[in-house]
Parts: sequence; structure tokens; C-alpha cells
Amino acid sequence: MTRVLGIDPGLQCTGFGVVEREGTRLHYVASGTIRTTASGIAQGDLPGRLKIIFDGVREVAQRYQPTDASVEIVFVNVNPQSTLLLGQARGAAITALVTSGLPVAEYTALQMKKSVVGHGHAAKSQIQEMVMRLLNLPGLPGKDAADALGLAITHAHAGGSFAAMAQATSLNRRTHAQFRKGRTY
Amino acid sequence: MTRVLGIDPGLQCTGFGVVEREGTRLHYVASGTIRTTASGIAQGDLPGRLKIIFDGVREVAQRYQPTDASVEIVFVNVNPQSTLLLGQARGAAITALVTSGLPVAEYTALQMKKSVVGHGHAAKSQIQEMVMRLLNLPGLPGKDAADALGLAITHAHAGGSFAAMAQATSLNRRTHAQFRKGRTY
Repeated sequence: MTRVLGIDPGLQCTGFGVVEREGTRLHYVASGTIRTTASGIAQGDLPGRLKIIFDGVREVAQRYQPTDASVEIVFVNVNPQSTLLLGQARGAAITALVTSGLPVAEYTALQMKKSVVGHGHAAKSQIQEMVMRLLNLPGLPGKDAADALGLAITHAHAGGSFAAMAQATSLNRRTHAQFRKGRTY
Repeated sequence: MTRVLGIDPGLQCTGFGVVEREGTRLHYVASGTIRTTASGIAQGDLPGRLKIIFDGVREVAQRYQPTDASVEIVFVNVNPQSTLLLGQARGAAITALVTSGLPVAEYTALQMKKSVVGHGHAAKSQIQEMVMRLLNLPGLPGKDAADALGLAITHAHAGGSFAAMAQATSLNRRTHAQFRKGRTY
């Protein structure tokens, strides 16, 4: 069994999504966003915001006990200052994953769209729609959460052989039924 | 008493320098570099390298017990990909500082050069020379360590009033003599 935590990093909003793969089937576990804007943190307090991202990703990893992590490869923005800010947010998120002991796979948005929608030119709304269908969700996930779930699905699709290895070595995993109780859309 | 940990972040080499201020006097405590290239980590293993930076900065903070941290504000590079990589290294370093409970101040290279050398157009070698003189070092520090010590000096110079506050609230600080034993050039 493989349980993948997908992360779509951003300085204001970092999306997360947890997906479990059993054989060829995918199951939704949880998803949501880590926001650095709502908690009384000043706009310019970069260290404070990076700490919220780091602590938030660590908390998600601890709560849902993934076996793998999957992060979007970000590309340089037209605005170089935005690129730098996004890089710092991504650095905090990846640090949280590796210090939680998770192997981190990286995928481009193009790879994610191809894996989830079937082609690389999908709009945000198409990703939301396909994530909802693939995971049998009762409603559309939010855009940031959908991207994160898409990244988790992409790694679950790609990681067939890793899944078998993980199954052989993992001990004492909780059952799927227990996990489903913890859903948070 | 204020003890400042200066950090000059970089994906390959992160410099650190610890400086203590007692009244108007500055004392050297320690300096060095955290390298991500030498430890068998593959060039492309970004998560592995960010973990080395994060763990290294945390270890330095734990060992030298600074009261403040000072980090260089990096500017966008001519190469956008380098900007992104540097941003991620900086994100890992700042996350290590804030999760160590340290307040993080940020200074530009220009501010650091003005504070250490007296003008903003100083060459690397002039920074090394002035850091050696200001801290009574027996020899020139390395370039990355000199920049980090320069950042610590800049914050120590700027933080006169904070120093008084820190002195009033700090308990059970070790003596300067004890610290000097721990020097590592």
C-alpha cells in the first residue's frame, strides 16, 4: 500500500492532498490548505510565514502518516521577486517533508495534468473535475487542494513498483476504513 | 548581552558566524560553513541538500545558543533558475532559525558592507580583512564565513537597544571565557 502526500507550495497558500493506492485503486484520505495570511502574521514577516508552512506540512505528515511525498516542480515566474518568494516557500515545505522522513518525488504541472486529465493543457477547473471523479469525491475540491491531490495521484500512478516494495516493508499500517474516518474535504 | 548568529545562505555552501556583543565590544564565538556537496549527496537531490542545510543550521543554533539571527537578503540573480535554487536554500535556513525560536533580522549585502567596511562597494577580500580586525582574529576567515560574521556584526551594531533588553531578560548565560574555548575558525 502506498499513501502519497501531495504538496502544492505557495507563500500565501500551500495546498495538500493525501491519496492512498491499494493495487490499482485510489482512495481519498484528506486534503486542505495551509494559509499564512489569516493568522495575524504581518505581510512582510517572511520568517513567520515560512514557519507556518513548515509546521503545517509537518502536522499533516504526522496526522496522515504518508509513505511518500510528491511536490510540484515550480518554474521561474515572469516576476523574479515572486520566483524568490516561491522558492523560499518551497524550501520550507520540502524541508518539512524530508525532516518527517519522507522520500520526496517532484513532478511538473505538465506531468500532473497529463496524469490526471490526460493532456497538458488542462484548465484548473478540469483538474478539479477529474480529481473529484478519480477519487469519488461528493463535491469539487478547492483549486489548491485539487492541485495537491493531483500531484499525489500522479505519484501514485507512477509508483506502481515502489508501491509493491512499500507493501513488502511496511509494518502495522492502519486499515483503510480507519483512515476514511479522518477525511476533511 | 546579545549573541548573534549570522547566516549567508547558499544551496552548495551556507556560511555561519556567531558574534557576541557586550556593551560596545564585539567578541568572536565561532564560524564555519555547511556544505551540501561533500557528503555523497547527488547534485540533483534537492530535498537531500535542503535537509543538510536545515539540520546544519539547527545544530549550529543549538551548539552556540544565540539570542538573535541575522540573514542576508538575497536579490534576484541574472539566472532565474539560480534565483529559485537560492530561494529554496534560504527557505530551509530561515525555517531552521525560526523553529529554533530565534528572531530573524534581514540585511542586504549593501547594509552589511556599510556596517563592516564603511562603504557599500567593498570587495570580498575587504570584508574578510575588516571582520578579522573587528573580531581580533589570528587569521583571515573564509569568504562565506566572513560574510556570515559580517551579517552578525551588522545586527550587533544595529541592535544596541535590543541588546540592553536581552541582557535584562536573559538568565544563566555562560561566560565569555567558556565560549572562546569553542572557537572554530
